[in-house]
Parts: sequence; structure tokens; C-alpha cells
Amino acid sequence: MIDTIIDWLRSITFLQIIDFVGTFAFAISGIRLASAKRFDWFGAYVVGAATAIGGGTLRDVMLDVPVFWMHDGFYLSCTGFALLWVIVFRKFLINMHNTFFLFDAIGLALFTVVGIQKTVDCGLPIWVGIVMGTITGAAGGVIRDVLINEVPLIFRKEIYAMACVVGGIAFGICHMFDMPTVVTHLSCGVAVFITRVLAVEYHICLPTLKAEDEEDEK
Amino acid sequence: MIDTIIDWLRSITFLQIIDFVGTFAFAISGIRLASAKRFDWFGAYVVGAATAIGGGTLRDVMLDVPVFWMHDGFYLSCTGFALLWVIVFRKFLINMHNTFFLFDAIGLALFTVVGIQKTVDCGLPIWVGIVMGTITGAAGGVIRDVLINEVPLIFRKEIYAMACVVGGIAFGICHMFDMPTVVTHLSCGVAVFITRVLAVEYHICLPTLKAEDEEDEK
Amino acid sequence: MIDTIIDWLRSITFLQIIDFVGTFAFAISGIRLASAKRFDWFGAYVVGAATAIGGGTLRDVMLDVPVFWMHDGFYLSCTGFALLWVIVFRKFLINMHNTFFLFDAIGLALFTVVGIQKTVDCGLPIWVGIVMGTITGAAGGVIRDVLINEVPLIFRKEIYAMACVVGGIAFGICHMFDMPTVVTHLSCGVAVFITRVLAVEYHICLPTLKAEDEEDEK
Repeated sequence: MIDTIIDWLRSITFLQIIDFVGTFAFAISGIRLASAKRFDWFGAYVVGAATAIGGGTLRDVMLDVPVFWMHDGFYLSCTGFALLWVIVFRKFLINMHNTFFLFDAIGLALFTVVGIQKTVDCGLPIWVGIVMGTITGAAGGVIRDVLINEVPLIFRKEIYAMACVVGGIAFGICHMFDMPTVVTHLSCGVAVFITRVLAVEYHICLPTLKAEDEEDEK
Repeated sequence: MIDTIIDWLRSITFLQIIDFVGTFAFAISGIRLASAKRFDWFGAYVVGAATAIGGGTLRDVMLDVPVFWMHDGFYLSCTGFALLWVIVFRKFLINMHNTFFLFDAIGLALFTVVGIQKTVDCGLPIWVGIVMGTITGAAGGVIRDVLINEVPLIFRKEIYAMACVVGGIAFGICHMFDMPTVVTHLSCGVAVFITRVLAVEYHICLPTLKAEDEEDEK
Repeated sequence: MIDTIIDWLRSITFLQIIDFVGTFAFAISGIRLASAKRFDWFGAYVVGAATAIGGGTLRDVMLDVPVFWMHDGFYLSCTGFALLWVIVFRKFLINMHNTFFLFDAIGLALFTVVGIQKTVDCGLPIWVGIVMGTITGAAGGVIRDVLINEVPLIFRKEIYAMACVVGGIAFGICHMFDMPTVVTHLSCGVAVFITRVLAVEYHICLPTLKAEDEEDEK
């Protein structure tokens, strides 16, 4: 019994660390882009928060369930901590590039898993779950780019949202074969993480749609 | 009894064709604009989907009813089919211009009718229905333009959303006189379609607001 | 009994005047910016409505309560009246600058109070209320700027949304000490209004985040 509680505490703590790492990395990405546009602290905070919790908010509103961050002060505090971090360590951020990239990929993986599981728990089919997992992971970045008035990056750069779809398919396959939840979640998360890391490492992009008056390459 | 079923099947099929035609045309318009901005396939799919289902999603979220596309795989498949179409027939799209325009007008008409009916079914007054019908028909295009970082086209070009309002007024009048549903729907849809076609044919625009330092024409 | 009714009528009327003044000022700000971009009447109306009711709509959707403007034709009529006003008095608007600024600050104060109270009524903690009050007051302006394809103004100019936060803290303190509702609301509204007026009078801005390659001033 005590062992169960300790295990439970451990799992909670681990998940919370992951959750913090992901939320923090997402918020940092929003705040840095806002600072490049010379936003003030409030604007930077809003863009950071929109990046970190925007995807999950959109998911919860569409699923018609209570919006997650309203019931846990953790997410908005975490964004505040990210803002403080950027203000204090501004000059060193560029050197933390690889760390942030890894944190971001971890966050993407976690948010995808959470999004799919929450959708399936609502009794919706797995393909809706894959869409919602992708929205949870990637929509925050789109909202961020809309707020800073740029064309959304994820529609043109290395595979980002597609990593969520790959993870979602892994989730779907495990789900189909009634695997234990922990295996399903791990497979999904690892698939997202590896796809994302490989995509950036080898600059894997999806094909671009050509404009209609453009020649095909010979 | 068998006749009823056949009639029912016929009506379903006809509506489904209209629905396909409209969703397809809306998705194509999103995908083409995304391709002009050199989005990758995923980005183009997202913009296409946002154009096709964005208005209805906004409506369902505001009405607090289940989001329509989550309960029918048809809409997202249809967007996938539209993406495939653009990839394969890219060079011929320009020649299908008139066809797509007609499809788009048909979709606009159908989406307006569906939006109004759904709102009235929620027990809301008809003027909310007209707003919701217009949102169902026109908000997808606004979301599309926000995602590709352009000023929304429908706020400046030939009458588009106003056609939904005209159709909505037709719906309201029929509703007031307790006409049969089929008459109400047809009047509304036809009003939207004709308004839109006439507006483009004769370049009918709404007056533009002048900037505050501008002279009136003499 | 009659006195009670008269008092009630008076309070209603006063609140309605405030509500009209605020909605009108918010709508005007949207319509004027739309006219600078040469939007047509419909586009200007949509941008005006989005500015006036966008924040409250986002709040109601996230709180999962009925969207306020659907149950009271007042808000959309008020936006229509604002459009008419801009069309007719276009050349004189520039001289009404100070009036509109005051109206806007009054609206900001009222919308913040309404947003916080509605959130607290949903049983959510006060910090969620402060976030929701800020969204009610300031999100409309962000949606406006997204629709006209500009970087949101409130993220870079004099304190605007921060005034809602200041008012929210006043609300929270009164709430903590179980003050009567009218005191709580007045303290909050007055705090928002004064913060906003002082910020513009003395050009008080929040610090700007510096870009990462920028030198600190000596």
C-alpha cells in the first residue's frame, strides 16, 4: 500500500517535471519571439502564455470540457517564471538553444499524449484524438505567430505538427491492440520526440506546394 | 413506407452532394492561397480545413453544441481529397476557375442554411440565427486569411458575407410566416446563391469607409 | 416597495448607460481602424463588433456559459449605431478624440468588473477572475488588430491591459475582506479607470523586452 503511494508520488512528480519542462519551453519560445518584436513585458507574457496553453485551451473548448489551466495555477505561474528567466538571462539564451530545442520536443510529446488521452476519455474516436493531440501540441505555436503578425512557422519549416500525427498513429495502433495505458503513452510520446529530433537533425521537410504558374523541376 | 425510405435516401444523397461540393470548394480555396505562400502539404491541409470547417466550428463552440466535424469523418476526408486534387491537377486549376466559383457559392448557400437552422433549433431568436449563418458561411475565409497573414478578403471585395445576411433575411421572413421547412431552406439558399453570383457578375461592392482625412468626391 | 423599484430602475439605467458608452467606444475604435484600411461597411461592422464583444465572447466560451450578446440585441445594435456614427460624423471624429478616450476607459473599467464577477459567480478562484476580467477588457482589441493584420497595439503602447490587472487586484482585495458588492465593483472600476487615464496622461509604459543581441544602456 505504501509502495503504491510512493510509486504514485514518483509518477506524479515525473509527469510534473515533464509538464513543467514542456510548458516552460513553449512559453520561452513565445516570449523570445515577442521580444524580437519589442513587445513590453505584458505583451511578452501574453504571447508566452498563448504559446504554452493556447493549444490545450482550444482543445478543451472544442471538447466542451473545463479549460485545464483554470483549475491549476501551475501553468500561468510557469509562464511567469519563463518571463523572468528571459529578462534575467537574456544574453545567454542563445547558448541554451539546444537545451530549449530538447525541452520543446519533450513538451510536444507530452502535450500530444495528453490531448489524445483526453479526447478518447470523452468517448470520441481515435482519429479525433489524433487531431486534438496535434492541436494541443501545435496550435499554441500558430496562435503565437498570429499574435506577432507572422506567417505561422510550422506550416513551412521542418516537420513539427506531423510529429504529433506520427505519435498519434502510434497511439492509435497501441489502442487498437488494447495495450496497457503506460505502453500506449510511452510509444506515442517517444514517436513524437524521435520524429521531431530526426526532422531537425536531418532537415526533413514536407514537400512544398508549388504556386500554380511554377514549372516542375526537370 | 418503402417510398418514404427512397425519398429519404434521395434527399440525404442530394444534401451530401451539396455538402461535398461546398466543403471541397472551401478547402480548395484555402489550399490554393496556402500554396501561393509556399506552405508545405501539412500547412496547406490545415489552411484548407480551417477554411472549410472553421466557420461551423466557431458556430458550434459559441452555441455550445458538439462540434460537427468530430462526429463525421466526412469533412476532414473531403479536405484531404481537396489537397490531393490540388497536388495532382495544379496546372489546370486556373481553368476550373468558374466551376470553383459556382461550387463556392453553392457551399456558401448551404452553410448559411445549416447555420441558421442549427441556431433556431437551439431555441435562439432568428436574428442570432442570421449572425450564426453568416459566421458559418464566411468565418472560415476570415480564419484562412488570418492564417496566411493577409487582411481578410471578404472585408474589401465583392459582396460575400452580405449574401449570407440577405439569405438570412429570406429565412427570417419564411420563418415568420410559418412556411414549410423545405421552402424556408430553399428560399434562403437560393437568395444567398443569387446574391453572390450577381455581386461577382456585376462587381457589386458595399461602399468603402473613407479614411478620416479624405475628401468627399464632388 | 415603489422606492425599491425606482432605485432598481435607476441602477439599471445607470449601468446600461455605462454599458452603452463602453460598447460604443470599443466599436468606434474598431470601425475607425477598419476605415483606415479601406474596409467596406460590412467589414467595418465586423471589426467593430469583434472589438466590442470579442473579449466577452472569448470569456463566455472559456467559462462555458451562454454567450452574452446572443441573449440581448443591445450589443449588436449598439455596434450598428457606432457604424452609422462614423459614416455620418467622419470628419469630426478627430475632434472627439478625448471624449472617445474617456468612453474607452469607462468601457474598459466596466468590462473588467463584469468579467471578474461572472467568473467568480462560476465558482472559480479570484486569480482566474482577474485573467478573465483582463480578457473581457483587452482581448477585443487584440482580435481587432489580428483582423486588420497589425501587431496588437496593446502589447507595445501605454498600459492598457495592465490597468485591468490593477483593477482585478483591487477586486481581489475587496473580495478577500468580504466587502459589499457595490464597494468591490466600484473599487475595481475606479482602479482600472484611473490607472488607464494616468498611464496615457504621463505616457507610462511597461518596460520593453530587449532583443537578444542588444546592448544594455550604460
